[in-house]
Amino acid sequence: MPTQFDPPSGTRDFLAADCDKRERAFAVLRSVFAGYGFEPLQTPAFERVDVLLGKYGEEADKLVFKILRRGEHEASGEADLALRYDMTVPLARVAAAYGSQLPTPYKRYAIGPVWRADRPGRGRYREFTQCDLDTLGATSPLADAEAFCAQHDAMVALGLTDFTINLNSRQVLSGLLEVFAVPAELGAGVLISLDKLDNLDPGVVIDEITGRGLDKSVAASLVGVMTAPDAVERIRVLLKPSDAGMAGLEQVDTLLGLARAQIPAERIVFAPRMVRGLSYYTGPIWEVTARGGTGSLGGGGRYDHLIEQLGGPDVPATGTSLGIERVLMLLPDDAAGRRGRIDAAVPVLGGEFAERSFALAAAARAAGLRASVYLGSSGKLGRQLRWASDSGARWCLIYGAAERDAGTVTVRDMVGGEQESVPADQITGYLAGKAGVADA
Amino acid sequence: MPTQFDPPSGTRDFLAADCDKRERAFAVLRSVFAGYGFEPLQTPAFERVDVLLGKYGEEADKLVFKILRRGEHEASGEADLALRYDMTVPLARVAAAYGSQLPTPYKRYAIGPVWRADRPGRGRYREFTQCDLDTLGATSPLADAEAFCAQHDAMVALGLTDFTINLNSRQVLSGLLEVFAVPAELGAGVLISLDKLDNLDPGVVIDEITGRGLDKSVAASLVGVMTAPDAVERIRVLLKPSDAGMAGLEQVDTLLGLARAQIPAERIVFAPRMVRGLSYYTGPIWEVTARGGTGSLGGGGRYDHLIEQLGGPDVPATGTSLGIERVLMLLPDDAAGRRGRIDAAVPVLGGEFAERSFALAAAARAAGLRASVYLGSSGKLGRQLRWASDSGARWCLIYGAAERDAGTVTVRDMVGGEQESVPADQITGYLAGKAGVADA
Repeated sequence: MPTQFDPPSGTRDFLAADCDKRERAFAVLRSVFAGYGFEPLQTPAFERVDVLLGKYGEEADKLVFKILRRGEHEASGEADLALRYDMTVPLARVAAAYGSQLPTPYKRYAIGPVWRADRPGRGRYREFTQCDLDTLGATSPLADAEAFCAQHDAMVALGLTDFTINLNSRQVLSGLLEVFAVPAELGAGVLISLDKLDNLDPGVVIDEITGRGLDKSVAASLVGVMTAPDAVERIRVLLKPSDAGMAGLEQVDTLLGLARAQIPAERIVFAPRMVRGLSYYTGPIWEVTARGGTGSLGGGGRYDHLIEQLGGPDVPATGTSLGIERVLMLLPDDAAGRRGRIDAAVPVLGGEFAERSFALAAAARAAGLRASVYLGSSGKLGRQLRWASDSGARWCLIYGAAERDAGTVTVRDMVGGEQESVPADQITGYLAGKAGVADA
Repeated sequence: MPTQFDPPSGTRDFLAADCDKRERAFAVLRSVFAGYGFEPLQTPAFERVDVLLGKYGEEADKLVFKILRRGEHEASGEADLALRYDMTVPLARVAAAYGSQLPTPYKRYAIGPVWRADRPGRGRYREFTQCDLDTLGATSPLADAEAFCAQHDAMVALGLTDFTINLNSRQVLSGLLEVFAVPAELGAGVLISLDKLDNLDPGVVIDEITGRGLDKSVAASLVGVMTAPDAVERIRVLLKPSDAGMAGLEQVDTLLGLARAQIPAERIVFAPRMVRGLSYYTGPIWEVTARGGTGSLGGGGRYDHLIEQLGGPDVPATGTSLGIERVLMLLPDDAAGRRGRIDAAVPVLGGEFAERSFALAAAARAAGLRASVYLGSSGKLGRQLRWASDSGARWCLIYGAAERDAGTVTVRDMVGGEQESVPADQITGYLAGKAGVADA
């Protein structure tokens, strides 16, 4: 592709097959989320800069696409608007704006593009679709369970089954820091290091933690517990002296109990070393990973004070984010995309047959088929049949001089090649019968 | 709403009912367009400024939202990207980029937001959805007819029937200028004035045309013909000496003939004074108006050289743009949006029943119902029944101590108030029966 016609760096054009695949997946998600009583929300692509900036720190602010002021202010080089960076800041604004108009609790999903000026890379885009599911105004663990159960059901409905929901709790992690007597100021850093145990050698993580200022023997024993084959059992015992730790275990067990009836046991586990980097989580956390280890397919947790920090009301909140771009990569390109753009192709054998051919295509559509007339300039049937074949059409509906004289339409099966003469006045009923075949 | 929580000027938040209505309408459009063999295309929200700017003139460029360069370049105050202003410039880029990968002709639709820094007003937004349907690479009038027939079918499928397709041709207009001997340099201005005859008094339009430099008697006679009750017949006679005019009439008659089989005669008319402001049209043009005169619901025409002017290949092109925001305003708020977010509400009568209640909701979903447990903190059934009612639930599924002891689930009809005891082991089949009712 000549570079000047590329879409901007980090963005994509979606041609037909991709559009179809994505749209079909989004429809599945909407349906699953609606099944839980989540309602849709759509906010503008951009927000005022004061709403958007300063919410996730300087590093995140650098990734925000800012929009120049317009008219006489354009020369100032200042921005007054910015493209949304995530779905949570707009959610906080909406919660503040519409308050009592919204149901309590407010269960909403949002599926749409977000924009981040990240360095583009494999699977990392500057424009990508985010799919978020959140409940504001409920402290109940049932709300947490609904979030990851809905994510689970959505992934299953999309055709994915080979994934694991890793469940943990911030309180479990606090309890661990407590029983290992990790100084408070080192806690966050130690957790960040522990989170790397899936990718790094234990020794490397121990060194990293030691480098953060923790005693080496403590670091080694912490990493040793976390990586032990019986880590879960050992941690359950270790946490007994910690109130936070015991509360965290109870959260995890409550959620495992709630999930039991609908999520197969092998698909959800207590994952005590799963940290989920974002510091705003306040309770249960979860992360969904594809088995085979291609990384996170999304996740979430409880974030009871974030909405207020983002400028919204002080409401408890929990939710999940589905890594829909990664999920889409795991889905097969669907057969429907390959079946061609039309079911019935209608050649046009000269200007005098144009009206009749155009009407034939309309009759085919009325019968439930996708249909189009030939739009090219060739009057030759052979050329037009090639177009029909290239279009993936199942049938050709031919009306020319012979058919006019006989009062028929010739229906050609593009797979087998056989042809049938159908009386012109019976074509609609005949095509309705074909429509049943096209659907199958 | 406190101002600081408003969406940015000229943009809107879509809460549940609006999202549902819009999504349903878009699904109808996609289905109708696919029925004609049009395929979807989705391009990024922004393009590089060199792709976007300078394409429609300075006035349009002022309406483009420009995105600041990032990182060290931000301070320059320069823009390198800009939000898309329409769907046609991206189409031209895509046609240039993917060339032979695209079918010939390339029939595509695009439904998505565009952004214009227009002064916001009633029904005029800075972020609004555009819905375009275009065919590149076909000179055939069948392609023109497909475009407005598809628009017609889409509007009918959305539930609108009270509209008119006004059909004209650039060549008809050229012919008129020719037979009235309007000097070439005045032609465009005269047409712009004629286009105002729907809203302005004929005398005002005559004055405006005279002000442009045309002889007053010519202006009066031109306006006289255009506003005559038998304007169409008079124009058909008047155009006889003009080759362009006769070619235009033939275009119009061809399209009326093609439309005959599928568009009721009262819904499509030859409208010789319809100009459609944009100068890039080269052949047939059409505009769809709601009867009752709330203005244009979209339209289009043939624009054979625009794609090349916009940076794409030199291909013939025709297409239509559906004024979907106005169409949406004409549609009733649908009943489905009012039927409530869930079908089955599941109270939670204390922590010990949480797992069972959560599983009941899952069973209801598996049976095809939308269902949710109560997420609030009240343990009182009365309060929870009020929540169920507020949620618009049709049934409540109650499981408490009495039900546990009896091995049943109590199903309460939220409309009639009657209750039924269903054996717990039969609840899934029972709910599947209910799902049939909920769909109806």
